[in-house]
Amino acid sequence: MKKFVNKVDDMLVESLSGFAAAHRDLVALHLDPNYLTRAQKPQNKVALISGGGSGHEPLHAGFIGYGMLDAACPGHVFTSPSPDQMLAAAEAVDMGKGVLFIVKNYAGDVMNFEMASEMLAGENATVLTSDDVAVINSTYTTGRRGVAGTVIVEKCVGSLAETGADLATCKALGDKVNQRTGSMGVALTSCTVPAAGRATFDIGDNELEMGVGIHGEPGRRREAMREADAIVGDMVAAILQDFERSDHKPAKGQEILLLVNGFGGTPLMELYLLFNSAAKVLEGHGLIISRSLVGNYVTSLEMAGASITVCLLDDEIKRHWDSPVHTPALRWGR
Amino acid sequence: MKKFVNKVDDMLVESLSGFAAAHRDLVALHLDPNYLTRAQKPQNKVALISGGGSGHEPLHAGFIGYGMLDAACPGHVFTSPSPDQMLAAAEAVDMGKGVLFIVKNYAGDVMNFEMASEMLAGENATVLTSDDVAVINSTYTTGRRGVAGTVIVEKCVGSLAETGADLATCKALGDKVNQRTGSMGVALTSCTVPAAGRATFDIGDNELEMGVGIHGEPGRRREAMREADAIVGDMVAAILQDFERSDHKPAKGQEILLLVNGFGGTPLMELYLLFNSAAKVLEGHGLIISRSLVGNYVTSLEMAGASITVCLLDDEIKRHWDSPVHTPALRWGR
Repeated sequence: MKKFVNKVDDMLVESLSGFAAAHRDLVALHLDPNYLTRAQKPQNKVALISGGGSGHEPLHAGFIGYGMLDAACPGHVFTSPSPDQMLAAAEAVDMGKGVLFIVKNYAGDVMNFEMASEMLAGENATVLTSDDVAVINSTYTTGRRGVAGTVIVEKCVGSLAETGADLATCKALGDKVNQRTGSMGVALTSCTVPAAGRATFDIGDNELEMGVGIHGEPGRRREAMREADAIVGDMVAAILQDFERSDHKPAKGQEILLLVNGFGGTPLMELYLLFNSAAKVLEGHGLIISRSLVGNYVTSLEMAGASITVCLLDDEIKRHWDSPVHTPALRWGR
Repeated sequence: MKKFVNKVDDMLVESLSGFAAAHRDLVALHLDPNYLTRAQKPQNKVALISGGGSGHEPLHAGFIGYGMLDAACPGHVFTSPSPDQMLAAAEAVDMGKGVLFIVKNYAGDVMNFEMASEMLAGENATVLTSDDVAVINSTYTTGRRGVAGTVIVEKCVGSLAETGADLATCKALGDKVNQRTGSMGVALTSCTVPAAGRATFDIGDNELEMGVGIHGEPGRRREAMREADAIVGDMVAAILQDFERSDHKPAKGQEILLLVNGFGGTPLMELYLLFNSAAKVLEGHGLIISRSLVGNYVTSLEMAGASITVCLLDDEIKRHWDSPVHTPALRWGR
């Protein structure tokens, strides 16, 4: 394992300290228990809190700021944060309008956020994200995994919360965006969790893992490496087949947001090639790509690979996607 | 070689097409010869054009837009663009106030931009970036290499050009920022140029290349892997020693911009750890980190590694760094 690290045990706090120092105009770091908040506390809005294992940066702390999150709770790499982190964060950012937890659907995260929710005195609710169409139930999951679509949920709910909307309304939008969002990932290499010191899984020089999870969990199948268009064709087909079976079968002319998300080790040049390929397939199905995002947003340390996410837009989602956002990792319109 | 690619020969145009589609509100792609411009042509300003081999994304096309470049000319991976690309780009974006080429100091780029400059009818000038303190002369270079500091030059000159400043003034600021900027890189792995199909260089499981170039060119020395603080200590020392020998020896209290740039394959978590480490060393020397940037801005495909860049700020540079920018890869204040 070759990584930029001093002592593995110190890695998380050193990295968080660097993050907070580099973005001190936007975020503040609180240690022991560890959580991050906005540098300036806003007023009179629902407080949005997310969190999960580290190693997926910029998720979640990179999305703290105006128009997105109020706080994030980072666990150790690929390990759930603890309820005391979530409680401390909630108490720090609650503005009296309630707390909404946005939680990726992994058993440990769900259990700990539930405990925090029960211990919290104030009103609170939870949006569980579960956009990964690859598998139902998985290594760390009952039901679907929450992956890159979580960024879209956090962006849209974050926008709505800034308008002063109440807790139930914010939760409803989060659930809606999640239901209208599907993702599918593929890995070309494994990643290495620092504390483990060895690759999470073995994969051959000519193999890919179709439907991989963001911790390197198995997907649908191991298969031979192929041309990008063929890989993308299967990824997009999996997403569209899933929508076909849902309550919101997209009609021709449906506007979508297309997110091509890198897992950390794939060059931007390849991510844009994947976008080009996915756009052709989706447009061939009569869908209109009216919003797009390409880059490393929900990563798996240094894994080579990428996911494709499609969100079925409506006027409400478009409005909240387009609204100003001012965070370390997503910033526009202000 | 496992990469998301269809035919290697088609990779560049497919990737550029995806880039232009994903950012069609900001950029327009022109093929044969290949160059990219802003989607809306501004008026009455010096036209800023950069370019170079591909594989360093988001440099340069990711910096097209308000407050930065007017056009970029992408060559094939790690290969200089040709003079006809530069000429076509210059003719497309020239607004009658002259053209400023911002060129990283590599022999092929310098030669081809010089040819374009000579062939161009209108007034033009060139800023050569050469911020890499690792080596004088190198595989592709006479003199120092231009690396991540190029982003700071493009940002500041881009800001100045928006004010209507003339060509000589823009060139002078570019030269000044370049002279006040030093960078040092380190590689933990090689990258693989798609057309070559094999790693650019061999490196052991416990080795690093100190002072590596952004094409995988050799640096100062091959050495054993060490703790991050020790690696960063040597990188920062190299930059500071270089400033000590220059005309602008930083005094205690000097404000700096600290850029920690990933080469493409290093997780953000590690880049922030490097930032934390570098900040401690620099502050220990009495320098004040008043601006910062952390992320993958000048990459080497999927190389694991990072560079540290220090820019010695003054009021003029701070003002132009802080001013609004609206490009695919750098966006704030607007």
